This record gives sequence, C-alpha cells and structure tokens, in this order.
Amino acid sequence: MASQGVTPRSEDYARWYTDVVRKADLADYAPVRGCMIIKPYGYELWENIKAALDRRFKASGHKNAYFPLFIPMSFIQKEAEHVEGFKPELAVVTHGGGKELEEPLVVRPTSETIIGYSFAEWIQSYRDLPLLINQWANMVRWELRPRLFLRTMEFLWQEGHTAHARKEEAEEETMRMLDIYADCAITEAAIPVIKGLKSVQEKFAGAEASYTIEAMMGNKWALQSGTSHFLGQNFAKVFGIQYLDENNEQQLCWTTSWGVSTRMVGGVVMAHGDDKGLRLPPRIAPIQVVIVPIWKTDEEKTLVMETINELHAVLGAAGVRVHIDDRVGITPGFKFNDWEMRGVPLRMEVGPREVEAGTAILVRRDTPGREGKQSVSAADLVSTVIQLLDSIQNNLLVQATAFRDANLHEAGSHEELKEIVNEGWALIWHCGTAECENRIKEETKATSRCFPLDLNEEWHPKGKTCTVCGKPAQGLAYFSRAY
Amino acid sequence: MASQGVTPRSEDYARWYTDVVRKADLADYAPVRGCMIIKPYGYELWENIKAALDRRFKASGHKNAYFPLFIPMSFIQKEAEHVEGFKPELAVVTHGGGKELEEPLVVRPTSETIIGYSFAEWIQSYRDLPLLINQWANMVRWELRPRLFLRTMEFLWQEGHTAHARKEEAEEETMRMLDIYADCAITEAAIPVIKGLKSVQEKFAGAEASYTIEAMMGNKWALQSGTSHFLGQNFAKVFGIQYLDENNEQQLCWTTSWGVSTRMVGGVVMAHGDDKGLRLPPRIAPIQVVIVPIWKTDEEKTLVMETINELHAVLGAAGVRVHIDDRVGITPGFKFNDWEMRGVPLRMEVGPREVEAGTAILVRRDTPGREGKQSVSAADLVSTVIQLLDSIQNNLLVQATAFRDANLHEAGSHEELKEIVNEGWALIWHCGTAECENRIKEETKATSRCFPLDLNEEWHPKGKTCTVCGKPAQGLAYFSRAY
Repeated sequence: MASQGVTPRSEDYARWYTDVVRKADLADYAPVRGCMIIKPYGYELWENIKAALDRRFKASGHKNAYFPLFIPMSFIQKEAEHVEGFKPELAVVTHGGGKELEEPLVVRPTSETIIGYSFAEWIQSYRDLPLLINQWANMVRWELRPRLFLRTMEFLWQEGHTAHARKEEAEEETMRMLDIYADCAITEAAIPVIKGLKSVQEKFAGAEASYTIEAMMGNKWALQSGTSHFLGQNFAKVFGIQYLDENNEQQLCWTTSWGVSTRMVGGVVMAHGDDKGLRLPPRIAPIQVVIVPIWKTDEEKTLVMETINELHAVLGAAGVRVHIDDRVGITPGFKFNDWEMRGVPLRMEVGPREVEAGTAILVRRDTPGREGKQSVSAADLVSTVIQLLDSIQNNLLVQATAFRDANLHEAGSHEELKEIVNEGWALIWHCGTAECENRIKEETKATSRCFPLDLNEEWHPKGKTCTVCGKPAQGLAYFSRAY
Repeated sequence: MASQGVTPRSEDYARWYTDVVRKADLADYAPVRGCMIIKPYGYELWENIKAALDRRFKASGHKNAYFPLFIPMSFIQKEAEHVEGFKPELAVVTHGGGKELEEPLVVRPTSETIIGYSFAEWIQSYRDLPLLINQWANMVRWELRPRLFLRTMEFLWQEGHTAHARKEEAEEETMRMLDIYADCAITEAAIPVIKGLKSVQEKFAGAEASYTIEAMMGNKWALQSGTSHFLGQNFAKVFGIQYLDENNEQQLCWTTSWGVSTRMVGGVVMAHGDDKGLRLPPRIAPIQVVIVPIWKTDEEKTLVMETINELHAVLGAAGVRVHIDDRVGITPGFKFNDWEMRGVPLRMEVGPREVEAGTAILVRRDTPGREGKQSVSAADLVSTVIQLLDSIQNNLLVQATAFRDANLHEAGSHEELKEIVNEGWALIWHCGTAECENRIKEETKATSRCFPLDLNEEWHPKGKTCTVCGKPAQGLAYFSRAY
C-alpha cells in the first residue's frame, strides 16, 4: 500500500523501472521463475490499451477468435526458419492425464502454425477472402532473466492473422495494421513511435518482411512496441492455405500476422515516468481524477465528503474515470505522493475552505509546482477537467516527442555511431547485413532498430554506401541500445 | 459457409448438438486432441456473455488481475483434497528452453493455489480486506473425450477469488456471486437456472461448500453452468493468507472462489436450439437483426440496397447489432436458412415492393409461420425492432421455464426416481452420501445435481428420510442425467 520514493532514474534506470512498476502496483514477479503477476492497477491499464486496439481492429473488419494453447511439435517444425527461431524458447508438455504423451505439445510461442492449419480448412474459394482474424491470448517463450512487462516467460498479447488472394492486398494489410499500431501508440499512449522496416536479421522467423513501431524510452533505449509481418506464401505453402479463384483454379494465399503485447505497459512506464513515479496518459489511465478529501474534525469530514460525493457523481456522469481516496489514518500528503507514484493525471483536493467557496483545487501530474495547480468553481468543474485531461494527454506526447527528437542523431562515420549510441539513436546508411549488425552490437551493444519509413523513399539508393562497412546501403537505419 | 440441415434432436441429440455448433460456425475440433477452436461467431457470443458478467463483477467491487499459467507442482500438492481432485487431469511441462526442469510445472487447472500464494503477500492488515479479485483466463484439464464447449481439454473462463476477515462475509460473497451468476443466466442468456448446494461428493476439491446454477437442456439433461465455492480457511491455512486485525493480532482469512466458463455457450445452444439450429437470446446475440435484400434485376438491386443501407444506419445508430447479408450468388431462401441456423433473433427482408411501400418485413426466429412475420413502416422500424427483440428475449425465457417446469418431478420412491430420470429431473429426499449417489448413478446414470435453495429452508429436517436408502435426509435434491 505505502509508496515510498523510488531510485532516481539518473542513479539506476533499471532499478527505477522495477521500483515504479512494483510501487505503483502494476505487477510483481511470480513464484514461477520468469513469470509475472499483473496486479489490478496494471491489468486495468492493459484493459484500456486492449480496448483501444480492439475497437480499431473491429472497425477495420477483423473478427476475434480463439485457437488452442497447445501446438503439436510437428506443426512448429514445418516451417524451417520458424522452428529455428523459436526452438530455444519453447515450453514443452510431455505428460498429460497421468501419462506420457506420444507427441509432445508445445505451449504456443505464437500461433502462425495452428492458425495456418485452420485457415487451410476455413478457406475454400475467393469468396472466403480476405480472412481477417485476431486473437487475444497468453503466449509462452522461455525466459530466465525476466523484466516485468518487457520480457517475461508468459505474456499477454493480441495476434492478428490474415489471408488474402493477392500479394498487394496482404502488403496493404501489413501496412494498415502498422498504421493502426502507430495511431494507437501516439493517440492513446502518447508515445511518438517511429514506423520502420526490420532488417533481415531482426525480422520475424518465417516472415518475408517485418515492420515495427519503435519507441524511445526515458533512458534513450528503444522499445520495439508492436510488429506487423508480411508472411508472403511461406505459411500458405506449408499448411496448404489455398483458394479456388474466379476461374476455378487453385491458388495459394498470401498471409500476414501482427502483434502488440503487455510490453506496451512497460513502454508507457518508461516513456513518461519521472522520479516521482508513473505519469499516465489520461486516455488509458485507470483513474483519470483522484479526489483527496481534506479535513480535521468530524464535522468538517461530513461537510467535505458530502460535497465530494456530489462532485464525484457529476464527473462520473460526464464519463470521467474518478476515484475518491477516502482511506482513513493516512495523511493527505501521503495520499498525494501515492497518487503521483501511480501516475493519476489529475488530483482534486477539497477541504472546508473549498466547500465554503464552492470550488475545488485541481493539480496536474505533468506540471510540477504552482503552475500545475488551479482553483475551479463547481460550475466549471466538468469542462475544466475534460479540458485539462486533453491538455495533459497532449503535453505528454509533446514532451516525449521533444525528448525523442533531441536524441536522434545522424552519424556520418563508424566512430560517430559508436559515440552516439551511448546516449541516443544513431541514424546511418546501413547495408542491412547480419555481419555488419553483429559487429556493431559487439562493439557498442546497440542493435539495428529499423529502417524508418519516412526517411527511406527508395531502397538501395544509388551511390549510398554503408557507414560502417562501405558496402552498398539498403537505406537509412536507426541503431540504439534496446530492450 | 453452406449450412445444410442438422440431425433432428429426436433422432440423436448429441449429434444434433455437434451439428449445430459446427454448422452455425460457433466452434470446431482442433488438430490437438481434446481441444477446440472457437470461431468468430462463437467467440463473439462468448464476448457478449463475458461483458455481461464483467459488468456485474466490476459493479460489485471486483477488480481483474492476471496470474501465471504455470503453477509449481508443489503448490498443487499443498491442499490434500485439492491435489486428489485435480491430479488425474493435469498437463505437465517438464521441458523448457531446451532443458529438463528441476520442478515440473503444471498448466493451471484452476488457480486457488497460485492466487492463494499471492493473497498471502498482498494482505497485511484488516484494511486490505475484503480483497475481491477476478481473472479471465484459459484453463487446462486433461480430457480425451471432448465435447465442443461442454468438455474440452482447454477452456476459457473467469475465476473469482476473494479473501475476507470474517466467515459470514465470505459466505455472503459466495451467495452474492451465485446470485450474480443466476441473474446473468436468466436475464442475458434466458436460461432459467436453479440455484442449489452441491452434495459433498460433487463439491469442488478443497471447498467447504459449493453452490451451483443448474440449467435444463433440450434433452432434459442438466448442465452445471457456474459454481461458487465457500473455501473456509482451507487455502488460507495452507498458503498463510492472514491479516493483522484491529487489535494487532494475526488472524486467518476466509476465502471464496467462483467460476463461469465457455460451457455457458454450450448451454445457450442446448437450452434454446431447435431442429433448424440455434435460437440466440437477443441480449447476447452477435447479430440481432440480419437484413436480407431481395432483388432480381440490377436496377432493383440498386434501389433495394440504397434503402437497406439507410435502414442499417438507422438501426445501428439506435444501438442494434445489425448485419446486411449482401453475399452474391446465393438465393434469399438459402440465406434465410443460414441465418436461422445461426439463430439470429430477427430477420428483415426488403425487396422492391417494400421499397415502394416504405416498409420492411420482419421475421421472428422464435415464432414459426405467419404469426412470426409482420410488415413495418420505416418510421416505426426502430421502435418495433427494439420491442420485438425484448419480446423474443422474454419469450425464450418463458419457453425454457415452461419446458423446465414440465420436466421437474417429485419421486416418492426409489422406483419412481429410476423412471423419472429417464426423462426429467427427479426431486427426492436425499441423505447426501456418496454411497447413495454412486448407487443411483450405477443404476440410472443420473447424478446428484443440487439441493435447490428455494426448496430447502432448513437442512436435516426432522423426520425426513432419504428416498433411496432411508437414512436421515440432508434435504430435497434433484437427480438427473448431466453433461
């Protein structure tokens, strides 16, 4: 319950992160190594992100469905690159119902194979296309050095899987979902992500091309926050996903897959948090306004609580997510700190003085000191709160964008690259080879984040060579430390 | 896509059920033995049931959270009765990340143990109580003879877990959630469930007392549709769930757990379905109104579609879940059958004649023949549709209640019991012993469903003896065949 201070970011960013996640009651480590427990406050934040995504998926014609947790080992092995990529991370069920299984079952690390199998059954003719499916589910990838939300053995996510008649349609879908992810990150989570293409080495195991939204965290590391994959006909070939076209001829489908996970919660923490704790974007905050009553005598308490209950009802009716902190035996000052730690965008204080004056005090989480504090009359409360929430949402995005832009640098040489990635993202001309990426990683721990789409109008531009190795460049790419 | 007829219920009820579930596109068997794939239409039905439950959980102060899929084997073994009950059904992960595990991990069959562990960490003082948590998650219980939705190796559910300072509060919570389940089944799914106490043999492994909502299916078998358990201090003792009371003394908590699963979808199919397929209660139907355009020439098509698009927008704006079936190359008659199979409550037909007259034809799924068909003017469309959906919702409940009541019978003797359970539920005075229940089961395949709460004002009433064995009766109990 008590939320004491956290380790300052400047002292130890990793510890700051874990402190905030635990003290803000978002999540904690589980007794099962590698796993986490998502606590109510963290889960509600995830539910709000989930709802924002789900709305967009449904509006763009996707339907939710549910596929089995267990996948036969033989399925995973069907796509060569896919099995290669996931084999080291698999959890395997060998016993069930008291007996050893004939074929071991893999706990899904992703569902391309089992969904590919189903698509082959569901799709008969061109009339069944496009098939646009999404699944909300838990995934397991073996992980012994977990970080809450960022890297855990089990995580929650959504995975979209679609099948199309034509290549261009599948490519369009891949980009449509990347755009939806970017829109959701920017509009809802106030995180100014960069859309880009993954290098061959960093792409999804089994994809033709992987696209990503990359976000800059408070320590200038990158967080891959969502990916959208054009799978070509790789899975269609292996699982026989085909359709009869208008001329009654069998054709292979083109497929895509795309996912966003509970990682996004970690991204919200690190994109906006400060040394006082979380700062939540109002649109996804579980609580948008917390009301702290101020009173000394029982008489004052009765008076104050009566007014507060009225204001609570008024805000609630206006669709504001509002909570009264009526805990007893805890000082208002302690409550202020506690809700700052939890990142609630607006605090409202009401004491006897405010009751008498027919006002309330509003304090912004994103603006420290006097500047963030104002008195508002009861009559203007709803409109002021709504306007302030909008302003806070916008301000978080503006701040995160300014921070990001201040830490993106062009590197004109290999040496500059090495310097820049110590505190920022370096943009270089990049050949796109694994060899070059591995070299940079060994030297600096920085990895290839993406070829940003807005800076690469054409691939393999004439005359441009890799800043590191001098070979012809695929395009401009960001390199940085990453989670 | 094509939905041909189904096996008549009178011919083979089990086959009718599977036919309907598959032909209405609710679900299908998975390539993994014992598992199912929930298709979009079935998943949307589940989402609507889920939303109806979640609303009620939140309104009664519960918060969602998420706990790990994997549970250490040692946790499961801590509560003697619990491990005894679940051991034969466990799926066990023995290998992870390419290595054999030191301690095998169980894929959760239910989460009392891992949540009990967490509660012990979260709860310090009486101020932390009551702790009211719910989890939406997938569960695994080994099962090789699956039935879609009713009994599958993996299923989706919610499990509530709460901790309380006093015994009475935990008992009240157990009953509150039972009431919420019954309200949800009756109000949303139009299933007139009977609330009752489970016998000792049928209760949850590790509970002090289990309560159930029992529903009658179309073949007069029972479906346990939700359970609410008073766990006493069993799990609190084993996991150390305790709190410091107002006098600073350590006390053990009292806990409850309660769950409803995707079984409920199977219940909806069997409580309302007929030989034409599903009949869905409007409140949870994915599609409440399907619009079928009728036209012969292209000119008629343009005219009809224009009107239909307008009516679609009007109904959508009024909050009605409406879908236009604009598939080409399929006759209206085929579409009528298809949507009857899928149980859409209202069908709306619009052809050139209706466009000219400014009307539409509405056809109720629940009322066959002329009686269920009416013409409505465009001006009255919204109000008529809303009123008809209410009427259908109500009618399904009235029909299911009448059917249930006609098939509940008192059995005055052991012989009568044997006859009645061939086609209905038998109410007898029951001693509550496993011995007696096993005997009845061997003789008739009927099992003890519950001691209905409304018929048992007191337990162990004086002078009443078991209809089967003659020992003192615990109360009146229903026996029937069950899923």
